[in-house]
Amino acid sequence: MTTLQDCRARDAADPLRALRDLFTIPAGVIYLDGNSLGVMPAAAPARIAAAVREEWGTQLIRAWNASGWFDLPQRLGDRLARLVGAQPGELVCTDSTSVNLFKVLSAALKIAAEDAPQRRLVVSERSNFPTDLYIAEGLCRERGYRLQLVDAPEQIAALLPETAVLMLTHVNYRTGAMHDMAAMSAAAHAAGALAVWDLAHSAGAVPVDLNGGGADFAVGCGYKYLNGGPGAPAFVWVHPRHAQRFWQPLSGWWGHAAPFAFTPDYQPAPGIARYLCGTQPILSLTGLECGLDTVLAAEPLGGMAALRAKSLALTDLFIALVEERCAGHGLELVTPRAHAQRGSQVCLSRSEGAYAIVQALIARGVIGDYRAGDAQMPDILRFGFTPLYLGFEDVWNAVEHLCEVLASEEWRRSEFNAKHAVT
Amino acid sequence: MTTLQDCRARDAADPLRALRDLFTIPAGVIYLDGNSLGVMPAAAPARIAAAVREEWGTQLIRAWNASGWFDLPQRLGDRLARLVGAQPGELVCTDSTSVNLFKVLSAALKIAAEDAPQRRLVVSERSNFPTDLYIAEGLCRERGYRLQLVDAPEQIAALLPETAVLMLTHVNYRTGAMHDMAAMSAAAHAAGALAVWDLAHSAGAVPVDLNGGGADFAVGCGYKYLNGGPGAPAFVWVHPRHAQRFWQPLSGWWGHAAPFAFTPDYQPAPGIARYLCGTQPILSLTGLECGLDTVLAAEPLGGMAALRAKSLALTDLFIALVEERCAGHGLELVTPRAHAQRGSQVCLSRSEGAYAIVQALIARGVIGDYRAGDAQMPDILRFGFTPLYLGFEDVWNAVEHLCEVLASEEWRRSEFNAKHAVT
Repeated sequence: MTTLQDCRARDAADPLRALRDLFTIPAGVIYLDGNSLGVMPAAAPARIAAAVREEWGTQLIRAWNASGWFDLPQRLGDRLARLVGAQPGELVCTDSTSVNLFKVLSAALKIAAEDAPQRRLVVSERSNFPTDLYIAEGLCRERGYRLQLVDAPEQIAALLPETAVLMLTHVNYRTGAMHDMAAMSAAAHAAGALAVWDLAHSAGAVPVDLNGGGADFAVGCGYKYLNGGPGAPAFVWVHPRHAQRFWQPLSGWWGHAAPFAFTPDYQPAPGIARYLCGTQPILSLTGLECGLDTVLAAEPLGGMAALRAKSLALTDLFIALVEERCAGHGLELVTPRAHAQRGSQVCLSRSEGAYAIVQALIARGVIGDYRAGDAQMPDILRFGFTPLYLGFEDVWNAVEHLCEVLASEEWRRSEFNAKHAVT
Repeated sequence: MTTLQDCRARDAADPLRALRDLFTIPAGVIYLDGNSLGVMPAAAPARIAAAVREEWGTQLIRAWNASGWFDLPQRLGDRLARLVGAQPGELVCTDSTSVNLFKVLSAALKIAAEDAPQRRLVVSERSNFPTDLYIAEGLCRERGYRLQLVDAPEQIAALLPETAVLMLTHVNYRTGAMHDMAAMSAAAHAAGALAVWDLAHSAGAVPVDLNGGGADFAVGCGYKYLNGGPGAPAFVWVHPRHAQRFWQPLSGWWGHAAPFAFTPDYQPAPGIARYLCGTQPILSLTGLECGLDTVLAAEPLGGMAALRAKSLALTDLFIALVEERCAGHGLELVTPRAHAQRGSQVCLSRSEGAYAIVQALIARGVIGDYRAGDAQMPDILRFGFTPLYLGFEDVWNAVEHLCEVLASEEWRRSEFNAKHAVT
């Protein structure tokens, strides 16, 4: 049996432990929701205050040159590229994940229409993050494609011969199950389809190798494991073999080859810059810069490989402690046990009270979240593990609270069963 | 002849003078570029710091409920609606102007395709803000329409019988010329076309009556006269008669009827909320909230009508002083003299040195900007007048500097002729 002392010893021996000091973790909180909104970097308040007072307040319009606003999406993109197996110049930080998915799926469908016009399917998983499906649904309707959703990844292979674009999220937002990106991309390519990946729950959480993994297009989120702050701009990556082939349809001035020439006709910028559109929210981009700093701070300590090793150790420990200490309380593990199939979160299901148990935990300062079930999936208690700022003792304490909430049945109290606007 | 004393007397008698204290104007600066990026509200640093430290840093994911992040685009939209003749529930603050234009132009083209399928033109002005033309160019190509650009507004009428959508910017970004929105919309409707308006240089600067003016769709900018901070989210308005008719193609989760139900199929929210797409940059939206506060602070003092009266007084004075004091220096007035045709800026052209003159003025703390000419238009010195924070003495001093720069020929110095990345 693992003990609290074991956990403390592991924290003391953890070479990444010092990275926790890069964050401001609220007192009394064990934060297991970094897969929804990452913790604030300690440097963020001063850095954002400087962007407000010095860049906006004092430099005003001169900040476009003096503070390099114009290149910010590319500068941040070049830094983020290192975390996802991309090269400088291949990735920009901009807009929202949904808007970026619209851009890349539009481009992918254009390529497919030219190279393989007989293919009329966009294939994805019914359990994919809904906004990805909504964007695909709209585009398919517009372009005359059919969005085919599968219930299990094994059903994909049979569809590939008719598939124009295979659109997958690398780590499932609800279950934490992770795809083998290289294998799925290779299968898509072998069958003549393109592979579009959403890295929302991957970037900063698990190693990703976009170039090595055979992806064609990718998008991802800035405010989850990248700790960029609420609604921080997202990112978009396009394989260099595709980047110059088409415009994306959101052809705004920031993606123009000569954005300050103010010519009436659109000429797309070379490379990934054409995936920019309108003026970007500089204050929120500044937050993203602070978040990227925290993940890149792990580079001298082993980078994403070291973060991944710790993430797996944390999720392994959580699973083991839940099974040791909460046995008999009706919790079922939803997330795969196999490391190769697990992202950086652990999801548990329970036939009753999942929502209220999460609320009772939040009241105790253990912040995870709840995702409602449906025909395919039970209600879920979702716990994200960000190795940058979580330790092994945190995991121990979180499980201790979970045991107490279940043993005491305090989750049955009415206050924990009242639904909030946002769950 | 107007004197400095006259200007000071007008400031002393100005009922809007106290609004200047709502801003932090850098020492030594006369800021005539609020049509590009508005001055920072004095309340912004503390308000944004609270969003960073308290909402993000402390509440973390709980801020979605505790700080009302989810309704922020609508809450700000309802407040902004008052400034542009719209009703609560008709307008949301979100994304960039370019992205919002894509949404509304897509919707307008869908309506046209259904109601008037024989019409194949989108009509706009060659002098329209380029990003609007780029977005229209992409959509026209996609949907099989032709983008027809006119050199003068008088050429529009003849095209209307074939026009699906008339897309205009209310106040021209370069010349400051203002359209009669009601007359142009009425002409479009009489001929069976739809009217899409860009209010980038109008919202917060001139009275706008979207419902009374017969507009079908409108977009606008948050960081110019609304003082929302660099790259602050833009806004989108749709007339209630159109709002529920179609999806816009950027069908992301924030525009879903039940965004937290996480269903795999898209059901658009009723009304304007369906024009939301992905997660919004909360810190930049918070900046916009501060900016809206400054414009709404004029409401007890007469609101947009009072701001408009002062704006015209400021631009009239600037024109008069330039003509009195800079005569013989080759400056030509580009902006219309007629009040009904003038926005809140004054543009001057000069056959030589326009760029360098602007740089020399900036070095003196008089911040305007330069817009390069083309076949239709000479090089321009552009001066924006935000009545919230500019006074009559500012105008006097700005013209004084302009006279000195021209008389001394200091603009010929090499430092003022070196081009910056962003001009």
